[in-house]
Parts: sequence; structure tokens; C-alpha cells
Amino acid sequence: MLLYDIGNSSIKCYSDGKIFRVAAVAEDNPFYYINVKPQMKATLEGMTNGVDLSPHFKLQTGYQGMGVDRVACCYAVDDGIIVDAGSAITVDVMENGVHKGGFILPGIHTYKESFATISSALIFDINEDIDLKSLPQNTEDALNFALFKSTYLMIKEVSSEREIYFTGGDGKSIHKFFKNSVYQEDLIFEGMKKVIKEMKC
Amino acid sequence: MLLYDIGNSSIKCYSDGKIFRVAAVAEDNPFYYINVKPQMKATLEGMTNGVDLSPHFKLQTGYQGMGVDRVACCYAVDDGIIVDAGSAITVDVMENGVHKGGFILPGIHTYKESFATISSALIFDINEDIDLKSLPQNTEDALNFALFKSTYLMIKEVSSEREIYFTGGDGKSIHKFFKNSVYQEDLIFEGMKKVIKEMKC
Repeated sequence: MLLYDIGNSSIKCYSDGKIFRVAAVAEDNPFYYINVKPQMKATLEGMTNGVDLSPHFKLQTGYQGMGVDRVACCYAVDDGIIVDAGSAITVDVMENGVHKGGFILPGIHTYKESFATISSALIFDINEDIDLKSLPQNTEDALNFALFKSTYLMIKEVSSEREIYFTGGDGKSIHKFFKNSVYQEDLIFEGMKKVIKEMKC
Repeated sequence: MLLYDIGNSSIKCYSDGKIFRVAAVAEDNPFYYINVKPQMKATLEGMTNGVDLSPHFKLQTGYQGMGVDRVACCYAVDDGIIVDAGSAITVDVMENGVHKGGFILPGIHTYKESFATISSALIFDINEDIDLKSLPQNTEDALNFALFKSTYLMIKEVSSEREIYFTGGDGKSIHKFFKNSVYQEDLIFEGMKKVIKEMKC
């Protein structure tokens, strides 16, 4: 089964349990996809061997305007917190198969770059090993502390010891701050596989 | 007594208990100042009626590279948390007249603008009345929730019920989330007055 996750900046392909980035969607094999890039919509709709999964997700939620990539990740989890850490970090709560809501933090690199817009004195290198328990004693630590601790506290606050499922490029960096967590690179594809299974029933 | 706080983007003047923004430092009266704008250094040093207060602060701290504006605010408080909310939000801890460390968050507008760099879908209006207790159910709430709750949690974590002194342009907006807090527009000038008093002893 060939699955495509078409994002704003990259295309990920899932095949035989493996994930790889591709430059374009191959046209010769049947495939399923989700797409959040408006410019790709017409091209994809013109491919007769491709199936858009977005209308098939039946996520129970009161949330308005949730991107299909976020929906797909949540779809893979019945109970727990879903954290997709890319240029933004989406944090969602699933309880008994129902989506209870969520919020959106700046991604690690977005947060870092926001300081550079204020002053050149606030340009710093990301340090994932920053101590989150001691008050910083210099600018570089003060900025890393803010970045990682604010992200940590926001996820911690909502998780209440529940299992946390991390995915996305920066998911690994944040995942290690939490005991009750897993990093699952293929989470979005798990959601896609689940909806395909339902379609076939 | 005429006091000037010369920042990167504006100059504030304190006179007879009042604070007002000015376009330039007046040259005809004796004055005290602090300055964080490198380009202003030579001009100010050329003014014979002006006294730079920066070498006179005796703040006990292990923190390296603390701006003199931040030092001046901390100097005004013996015990408590000092939050100066501008384009960045500095958060500092004072205990028995000793500075214990601090950190730097993006300011409210810096945080908001960071989302706009990711996607036009993440452009939103700031809503200071956002409910910090319920999980958001749409994008605008999801972003406001992240902005205010992450700022709130970071300050709350360090304050531990101690008194919080807010200052800076956005201090009023954040101040209202905390019971144990005051908003003190003139905090930086209080620190300047304290050091002047010490110089005269």
C-alpha cells in the first residue's frame, strides 16, 4: 500500500512500513493521500489512481477548522495526548476515541527565530540539554530555558500523566523530557491506515 | 530630578513622579540616565550635565551579561519576581536583595508574529480574555491559549505565590492573570532613584 502525506514544505511517502521523503507523487501506482497544500489540490485531483482520504475520517470533535494532517494523527490514538512537533507544535487530547480540543505552540526553531527579530543580542544556539530545574545565569541559558520549559509545561499541564504520542521532526527532542511518552514517526500513516481499513469494511 | 531610560526603540523620561516618552534627551537640565542603545553612547557621554547610572548599581548576582534596564528594575525589589513585558519578557527572581537568576520569553506581539512566519492560516487577533482553563476548539483560541497560558505557566512556576512586580508595555495584560501581583509602570525609575540615593550617601 502506497500512502502520501503532502505537507506545505515536503512530501512523505509510506511504503512497506518505511517512510521516506519524495520530491513528487509517483503517478504509476495506486495510492492514498492526505494533502494540506492548496497548490497541490488540482494536480492530485487529476490523478485517477489517487484517493484523497480527507472526506473519510470520522473524527468526533467540536473543534472547527482542524487540518487533515492533525486529524490523521489524532485518528491513530484512542486515548492520550498527540504532539506533532514541526514548524508549529500541535497538541491534541483524545479520550475514548473523542477529540477533546487542542492548542498550537510555535515550533522549536520558530520560537528561537522569534527572539532574533527582537535583537541581535538574542540570537542563540539551541541546547536540548538545558537544565529545566535551575534558574538560568546567562542569556543563552535564559533563552533555551524559556523555549524548552514553556513547551514542556504546556504539554505537561494537559497530559496529567496520560500517555503522550510524539511525532514530527522535533518530536524526538521534546519527547525525552517526558517519561510517559513514545515517539512514533509514522503516527500520521497509522491514522491513514485506520481510515482505509474502515473504508473497506 | 530628571531621569532618562533610553531603550532600543524609545526614550522614557521621569520627572516629578510622571513618566512620558520623549523624542530626545534634553540638554539644558542636569539628568541621570541608563542606556541600552549602543548608537546613543557617544552622544550621551558628550553631555556634561548627564550622569550614567550603570556603573553605580551594585546588584548581587551570578548572572552574566544582564542589561542595565533589567538590573535597574531588579534593584527596586528586595523580594519577589520582576516581569518586564515588552518585545521580550524578562522574568527575574530577587531574594533578600540578591538576584537569583532569570529567563527571557518572547513578548506577546513577538509570539503572535512568530506564528505568521509559519503560515497565513496562523495569523490571529490577540484576545486577552482567552479562557485558560478550557481546551480550545478553534485555531484563534488555540493560538491565544498557547500565547497566554505558556507565559502564565512560566511566571507561575517561578513565583510560588511570591509577589510579582509587572512593568513594561504589556505588563498590564499579563498582570491580571495573577492575584499576587502589582503593575508598576515606574519600576525602572524606582531602581534608578535607589541607586542615586546610595551614591549620595
